[in-house]
Amino acid sequence: MDGKKTESVSSFPVRTDLALENRESFEGDGGEVSGVALREWVHKKSRVKLTEVKILNSQGAQAMGKPMGTYLTLEANQLLKEDEEYHSQIAGELAGELRRLMEEMLGGRGCFRKTGGPGGGQNGEKKKGKKKKGFPAILVAGLGNSSVTPDSLGPRVVGNLRMTRHLREFGQREEAAQISGIAPGVMAQTGMETAEILKGIIRETKPDLVIAIDALAARSVRRLGTTIQLTDTGIQPGSGVGNHRHSLTEESLGVPVLAIGVPTVVGAAAIVQDTLSALIQVLRNSRITKKTGDWIAGMEPEDQYQLIRELLEPEFGPLYVTPPDIDQSVKRLSFTISEGIHQAVFEEKGRE
Amino acid sequence: MDGKKTESVSSFPVRTDLALENRESFEGDGGEVSGVALREWVHKKSRVKLTEVKILNSQGAQAMGKPMGTYLTLEANQLLKEDEEYHSQIAGELAGELRRLMEEMLGGRGCFRKTGGPGGGQNGEKKKGKKKKGFPAILVAGLGNSSVTPDSLGPRVVGNLRMTRHLREFGQREEAAQISGIAPGVMAQTGMETAEILKGIIRETKPDLVIAIDALAARSVRRLGTTIQLTDTGIQPGSGVGNHRHSLTEESLGVPVLAIGVPTVVGAAAIVQDTLSALIQVLRNSRITKKTGDWIAGMEPEDQYQLIRELLEPEFGPLYVTPPDIDQSVKRLSFTISEGIHQAVFEEKGRE
Amino acid sequence: MDGKKTESVSSFPVRTDLALENRESFEGDGGEVSGVALREWVHKKSRVKLTEVKILNSQGAQAMGKPMGTYLTLEANQLLKEDEEYHSQIAGELAGELRRLMEEMLGGRGCFRKTGGPGGGQNGEKKKGKKKKGFPAILVAGLGNSSVTPDSLGPRVVGNLRMTRHLREFGQREEAAQISGIAPGVMAQTGMETAEILKGIIRETKPDLVIAIDALAARSVRRLGTTIQLTDTGIQPGSGVGNHRHSLTEESLGVPVLAIGVPTVVGAAAIVQDTLSALIQVLRNSRITKKTGDWIAGMEPEDQYQLIRELLEPEFGPLYVTPPDIDQSVKRLSFTISEGIHQAVFEEKGRE
Amino acid sequence: MDGKKTESVSSFPVRTDLALENRESFEGDGGEVSGVALREWVHKKSRVKLTEVKILNSQGAQAMGKPMGTYLTLEANQLLKEDEEYHSQIAGELAGELRRLMEEMLGGRGCFRKTGGPGGGQNGEKKKGKKKKGFPAILVAGLGNSSVTPDSLGPRVVGNLRMTRHLREFGQREEAAQISGIAPGVMAQTGMETAEILKGIIRETKPDLVIAIDALAARSVRRLGTTIQLTDTGIQPGSGVGNHRHSLTEESLGVPVLAIGVPTVVGAAAIVQDTLSALIQVLRNSRITKKTGDWIAGMEPEDQYQLIRELLEPEFGPLYVTPPDIDQSVKRLSFTISEGIHQAVFEEKGRE
Repeated sequence: MDGKKTESVSSFPVRTDLALENRESFEGDGGEVSGVALREWVHKKSRVKLTEVKILNSQGAQAMGKPMGTYLTLEANQLLKEDEEYHSQIAGELAGELRRLMEEMLGGRGCFRKTGGPGGGQNGEKKKGKKKKGFPAILVAGLGNSSVTPDSLGPRVVGNLRMTRHLREFGQREEAAQISGIAPGVMAQTGMETAEILKGIIRETKPDLVIAIDALAARSVRRLGTTIQLTDTGIQPGSGVGNHRHSLTEESLGVPVLAIGVPTVVGAAAIVQDTLSALIQVLRNSRITKKTGDWIAGMEPEDQYQLIRELLEPEFGPLYVTPPDIDQSVKRLSFTISEGIHQAVFEEKGRE
Repeated sequence: MDGKKTESVSSFPVRTDLALENRESFEGDGGEVSGVALREWVHKKSRVKLTEVKILNSQGAQAMGKPMGTYLTLEANQLLKEDEEYHSQIAGELAGELRRLMEEMLGGRGCFRKTGGPGGGQNGEKKKGKKKKGFPAILVAGLGNSSVTPDSLGPRVVGNLRMTRHLREFGQREEAAQISGIAPGVMAQTGMETAEILKGIIRETKPDLVIAIDALAARSVRRLGTTIQLTDTGIQPGSGVGNHRHSLTEESLGVPVLAIGVPTVVGAAAIVQDTLSALIQVLRNSRITKKTGDWIAGMEPEDQYQLIRELLEPEFGPLYVTPPDIDQSVKRLSFTISEGIHQAVFEEKGRE
Repeated sequence: MDGKKTESVSSFPVRTDLALENRESFEGDGGEVSGVALREWVHKKSRVKLTEVKILNSQGAQAMGKPMGTYLTLEANQLLKEDEEYHSQIAGELAGELRRLMEEMLGGRGCFRKTGGPGGGQNGEKKKGKKKKGFPAILVAGLGNSSVTPDSLGPRVVGNLRMTRHLREFGQREEAAQISGIAPGVMAQTGMETAEILKGIIRETKPDLVIAIDALAARSVRRLGTTIQLTDTGIQPGSGVGNHRHSLTEESLGVPVLAIGVPTVVGAAAIVQDTLSALIQVLRNSRITKKTGDWIAGMEPEDQYQLIRELLEPEFGPLYVTPPDIDQSVKRLSFTISEGIHQAVFEEKGRE
Repeated sequence: MDGKKTESVSSFPVRTDLALENRESFEGDGGEVSGVALREWVHKKSRVKLTEVKILNSQGAQAMGKPMGTYLTLEANQLLKEDEEYHSQIAGELAGELRRLMEEMLGGRGCFRKTGGPGGGQNGEKKKGKKKKGFPAILVAGLGNSSVTPDSLGPRVVGNLRMTRHLREFGQREEAAQISGIAPGVMAQTGMETAEILKGIIRETKPDLVIAIDALAARSVRRLGTTIQLTDTGIQPGSGVGNHRHSLTEESLGVPVLAIGVPTVVGAAAIVQDTLSALIQVLRNSRITKKTGDWIAGMEPEDQYQLIRELLEPEFGPLYVTPPDIDQSVKRLSFTISEGIHQAVFEEKGRE
């Protein structure tokens, strides 16, 4: 009976959409996971904590339960507060990271450097052919259900964005990224898979990149509205508050998909599990109940999970836990994210 | 160690806004609570189950944790389904019960009987003086936050209602109830207590009765969207999804308050407690862990509650559990309730 | 100087999306337009007036300024009133006409007859091959801008509809039409043409028919919210409140397009023209001003139009006139239309 | 026949809510109106044009058709554009003017100066007694119908505001203004007069000042979304897009009312009148029609108005003209105004 076993309690396969939380569940094992590279840093001014999890190979992918790729999280507890200046700082940080990720995903085309030397332009030219150089066409997909508050982040971000793709024809020179956007709704509203709708629109409008915004489920309540995850792997089946059934990835959609996600709910099962974990600690600290605590902690994770499922069933399928002021959080975050996208695609100051 | 003790686990003072659920927590004790009268019946056609809990005296009030008065619940599992005809049946039942309760609250004035004999009219005349006879003026208050889906029931009902109070002056004869309505918002949106706003409006517009619609918190997930509670006691402090801080009662507002509530959330603590209750059963059924199960079950309810609170703290203050299709439920229910009110106040067929 | 000339005033090419109004502008000429067939009838019970304008050839198309095809209008002044039973009657009529038009457009496949004999089924089989028989797949497109009240009809109808296409996979037998729906937004919101979005979705989801719902511009204020136009010609460039720039027709989208339109605005220019028409009458009735009245009435329609344009410019580009209670009209109409579609595609009683 | 007569055409009593436009209708007479003082200046940096119309006595009030008081307008054509920095500048200007007006209305209490010398504080003390000094309590009323786009400005501004009144009790020191807010809806939604609702709330919550935000009707299309009017006279009967029937003034509500209005519609009659004015000019310039032009121009304004009314009736009661992108304008303006209020009441930089 040691630390490892106890920690294994929190490695129950309870659902999280955050790679960061998958990663944390291994920390009891020394923190090293084969095939996974970790990098952490803190931004000086804003005190935002950034964590980059790179899943390098299939071994890492299996351990993490997520596909290979880069997962970057910005953690900023003050995001919950109504502080415009702070939100503007976070938008700036987000813009920088977005731009970096987009350039990597677009093959280092240097798309966003207005004064880009011939090299950048020529690289782009070589890579894509049809697109001589310059600015990418980006389709922003605001996933989720606009009439369910915690699931409305994506549609709200799209509602805030300044679309530019349609301005081309009006004689405007191609001096900036071409932004288009859609909030495709959820299956109950449309009768269609989000993947079907996006696939069709992409085939017709041929963007270079899709940015998919989605509300996520986290493991921990303290992440709600305080963490932004960027990833170049797109959206996986089963992820998001609305539980997407199909993947939205480069493989399925034909163009690279940068996903921006913010946790706005915690699965009810996660909450129960946290409480049980805490209960086990209490039981093991008492002489009378130590045996039971050990007994539960000593169960195989699979069996523990089974136990919780049995206790919860049948009421606990898809229930979500959310704080009552979620409307304010989602509204503020939608502005921070749309501002971050604006800076990343339209402005010089984005990163440097 | 007997059944009683086990049952006491579920009498943790975890919050429910339903008198029905308070009542159920006593069932292990034989079901009889002093000062509380219970009546149950099932409607033949619609299979709606009706339960009337009357809290008759202060002893009953203390046992139930709710003020003296009548609490009527309609339970209809099919309310979750999208069946217009069924919803229309429920609206009819609701109308009948609403009318009955309103007439009791308005002193048997027989307000709604168009062909009312002289008796009814004269009673009314004696009681109120200023209002000769006839139709009451009703202010409908749609409590809650319209931008948080599970808390938006009240504002939605008000949005569906046909207001008539302002038509008086346009020469329309007083042949029907005068309906007015307001969705006062929540304190974070207005900076004011709901009670302050309503008190002011009531003083100015002088309704005979307030109908307050609110989204409630239940103990059990299966009540979400399937139960409608009517009560003549108004709204108590601490109740509702938005946790009203002040009471909305005849005492505080100066006019009788009929409250219509539908549970749309379950407190996260209730979910945890349910799981723990189930866990205790499991523990007691195993030889190894029986001692622990007994130990927990044997704790004083107060201590048990304290234990859960400690396990949950600090993350679990005001978290709510809600199903992901809550938007559809709330939309449908808001139509059922507004239709019920329309029939109760405007139509003959209401009851009979 | 005779009646014809005066009438020609109202044949100014001021924009209307209603074939009925185009047709009316010819009535001064005896009412006969070559290449255009007219049929009118009144429904006994609901007193709805139905008018079918069939544009039979290119001569008719040129005269009417609309493509060849069938244009059916339902006129019902009481639609403006809040009378649920009446709205329900109109929904029934609408359902019948919709069903008739859909069956014509789908090649008489008899798609909606549940008890269809072998003939109907086999016809369908021969025609499409892949689709053995039975019920069609319909994509409903709610055109317009949900955040501009008079342009929000389409998105609202889609929001009311019961989608069924995604239920196929859940083992539900193909016993009803497969409905899917999308509110694609307007170009300023998405950066994309509506036609692009729909083309992509159609290519991916392969519906048999598109139903496009749109808010229209009428010539006459009294049509606002009282007239429903059905047509098998789809949506033309320049039509709709939002002024669609591209056509949504079988030619452009690859599947037949049934358009449902309701006028919710009148162009400001139309209002001015009406006033001028009335002024001319006044002028001609006075001895002093008769000469001027005759002078204006005697102008070539082109010159009259030019005069008005000059008077209105530059302020009068895209201004719309709308009544202040448009929100209620649009809300009610959206329920009537979605109910009509439901009955047309799901129910037996639709037609008979 | 001279300039005066022609000008009188545009002095038809067609409705405008802008004092600026009332004032302009006198400009043909030399611009001097007895009892009305005019001051105009242009802000150097933002190029905002400010006009202050002071109606000094009953003679001025009669001439202008508006009550005595101060009417300040900010005109900024670029407000229609999506330029965040510019909007932020306008918000700053608005804040300065709001603060100045509020201080005048609150009796020079110097409420907003944190470092206010003893004089300011003592004055306040003397004036009100109960309120020792310091920060005022302000109720912001967002008038209009949130579901009719051009009438939704008021409710949107209230939705953007940071309420603080309810924070008092949580131990927060009175270091800032106490803001509360309500969007009372329109009579068709509530069955109550806006004045009744506000009167009640004011009686209950006792603010020092009401700020009422409303969408206005202008005479000229070019004012739509480009002009902000501030006045210390409150809201008059018949004003606003929704046509308030009762006044909201210090006299009727018991506290001073600062009204902020932005034109979002033009009455359809105004549009027609503009066109007729232009037509008259055309008629008078032609030899054939000069007589008619003179005849119309020579009519008494009352008779002209009657003529237009007759031409327009019965269709033209309450029709409004609005541009199709009004949703974007109203959204942006609501942020500019709420930001202006925030700076005026919470920040130091507001004025200086």
